[in-house]
Amino acid sequence: MKTIGYAAQAANAPLAPFDFERRELRANDVAMEVLYCGVCHSDLHQARNDWGWSQYPMVPGHEIVGRVIAVGGDVQRYRIGDHVAVGCMVDSCQSCDQCRKGLEQFCKKANVQTYNDTDRFSCEPAARTHGGYSKHLVVREEFAVRVPDGLDLSKAAPLLCAGITTYSPLRKWNVGPGSRVGVVGIGGLGHMAVKLAAALGADVTAISRTRDKEADALALGADRLLASSDAEAMAQAVNGFDLIIDTVPVEHDITPYLPLLDVDATLVLVGQVGPLPPSTTVPLLLGRRAVAGSCIGGIAETQEMLDFCAKAGVLPDVEMIRIDQINAAFERMERSDVRYRFVIDMASLPAPAAA
Amino acid sequence: MKTIGYAAQAANAPLAPFDFERRELRANDVAMEVLYCGVCHSDLHQARNDWGWSQYPMVPGHEIVGRVIAVGGDVQRYRIGDHVAVGCMVDSCQSCDQCRKGLEQFCKKANVQTYNDTDRFSCEPAARTHGGYSKHLVVREEFAVRVPDGLDLSKAAPLLCAGITTYSPLRKWNVGPGSRVGVVGIGGLGHMAVKLAAALGADVTAISRTRDKEADALALGADRLLASSDAEAMAQAVNGFDLIIDTVPVEHDITPYLPLLDVDATLVLVGQVGPLPPSTTVPLLLGRRAVAGSCIGGIAETQEMLDFCAKAGVLPDVEMIRIDQINAAFERMERSDVRYRFVIDMASLPAPAAA
Repeated sequence: MKTIGYAAQAANAPLAPFDFERRELRANDVAMEVLYCGVCHSDLHQARNDWGWSQYPMVPGHEIVGRVIAVGGDVQRYRIGDHVAVGCMVDSCQSCDQCRKGLEQFCKKANVQTYNDTDRFSCEPAARTHGGYSKHLVVREEFAVRVPDGLDLSKAAPLLCAGITTYSPLRKWNVGPGSRVGVVGIGGLGHMAVKLAAALGADVTAISRTRDKEADALALGADRLLASSDAEAMAQAVNGFDLIIDTVPVEHDITPYLPLLDVDATLVLVGQVGPLPPSTTVPLLLGRRAVAGSCIGGIAETQEMLDFCAKAGVLPDVEMIRIDQINAAFERMERSDVRYRFVIDMASLPAPAAA
Repeated sequence: MKTIGYAAQAANAPLAPFDFERRELRANDVAMEVLYCGVCHSDLHQARNDWGWSQYPMVPGHEIVGRVIAVGGDVQRYRIGDHVAVGCMVDSCQSCDQCRKGLEQFCKKANVQTYNDTDRFSCEPAARTHGGYSKHLVVREEFAVRVPDGLDLSKAAPLLCAGITTYSPLRKWNVGPGSRVGVVGIGGLGHMAVKLAAALGADVTAISRTRDKEADALALGADRLLASSDAEAMAQAVNGFDLIIDTVPVEHDITPYLPLLDVDATLVLVGQVGPLPPSTTVPLLLGRRAVAGSCIGGIAETQEMLDFCAKAGVLPDVEMIRIDQINAAFERMERSDVRYRFVIDMASLPAPAAA
């Protein structure tokens, strides 16, 4: 199937139109027309090869909402016309202990990422996966989730990464009414963490370097903002959290946040992929505190999250852009100049002539 | 009460005989004659002010086994002649959430350490606590535990720190039959972690830099030894552990151990107090792994541990010394030349003339 997308051709090249082919439908595949695609900070990291594993050409995008336009012969779950969504993974082994537990993100044989990865079933060396900055996507049905009725299609896309990445640790660490949750960093991930934790009934504190984002944090549903540059406020907040979700996407020192955890509480890293600066064991030892990581969520949990958001009325704050604005959006995102997530309206990308 | 001990008078001074007074019995105090005292690596750290908070003179020792020789008027639990033991704490607030949960080690008002700390009830600025390298000890009854019949008094002392420090995380992280437990560092703490994990039914791997300690590790009850310098063996062990207890008492890089954890598994630091070198978030994120700390255990759990050791026949491997050998023992401990714990036979310390 011929299609078109926006691709990076090199680490230092802007994204530009790119004609390519999606695979022919296998029996358990669905083909979808992409309607909206969120712009994740990791799209920028990978387009620019910040993590060192990028291959080009690369069509980014893993917050994808669309409409089913064709189904393979064995597809059970979806029919043409259904609204479906795809997140960060498009395949996994489906048989290891983690896949059987619904934790495909931790597949022992490595899942297949939605873009910048290789199709596990194709022998062609060029069988690279390409993401949602494109007109069409083909995916096995197990990795598509249903967009529930009532969820605004134009805003739902960021839930597929920013949403599940923050929902999953909130659920894993049993956040509910009365939980004291801190959210470090109020950006794409952080604003979802605040909204979701509040919707789950938690007492939510946005933790930011200064008070600049206080009004925004309160508007998102936080009960208060704690400025990490305010030594007195930080001292008063010692032992004040059952869970801290750290969404900061760049290298940073977590040491100041550790004493804020109560005994047996955990700081979960979900943003920064890479170096962790030196810290100290003391706050870990003297409070049985933990530092953990979390990575998106499983497919069943992603469906649960979408259903929860539909029921609770949780949606990201988005700024809609055209696909030809993507390079400018990357630059603004780098300056944290977005509240809080760009979404590409894929109607702005003309269908390929032959499609 | 006049007594005698061995004290450090300065960070660079050897321990030497020291006459001092124990407080008069309060209503809920017991006085004990110290029979045996274990030598913990932290005694060395504190005697030499490695952590920066030492005050002198200091009588170390927090692995203490003795016999009750007097009781205050309100004492309920113990009678003269009972065998009791004291660990790292001699007091806490008894009213905060942690104390009420039996986690006195995390008392929100700070517990009182057995030595190198200040008695919370005394107005005298000199009311310093002194440890078990002494003939007598006075302690409130809530911080004494009972040495169960059948536990060899001459070997039980190290259970009060090395034992509880490793037993507590094994219990907290639900180790039982089938659990895959790794123990990093085979010294005073590590040899107890191996013995206790094995007694709890776990599959136990000693993790050491080389194979030098393989025979010893197997003799302690480990199922195998993994040499962290063997890259191939380390690669094969990826995802192989439900819990790793890291007992190394000096600054070290934990990064190589993180991939050994299975999904949702935890590395618990119990040895090193202080700097944690740079690491990476990647193994934490890609496996929802955690790094936590743990610190001794609560009083009720310490009693549970002693009772478990009596029932399961778990005792440390000890080398008995006289009190006048303590400085040589410190030097040998610094070279890791002890298998695995020195215990001071306090009969080697003559009672003070006036006692």
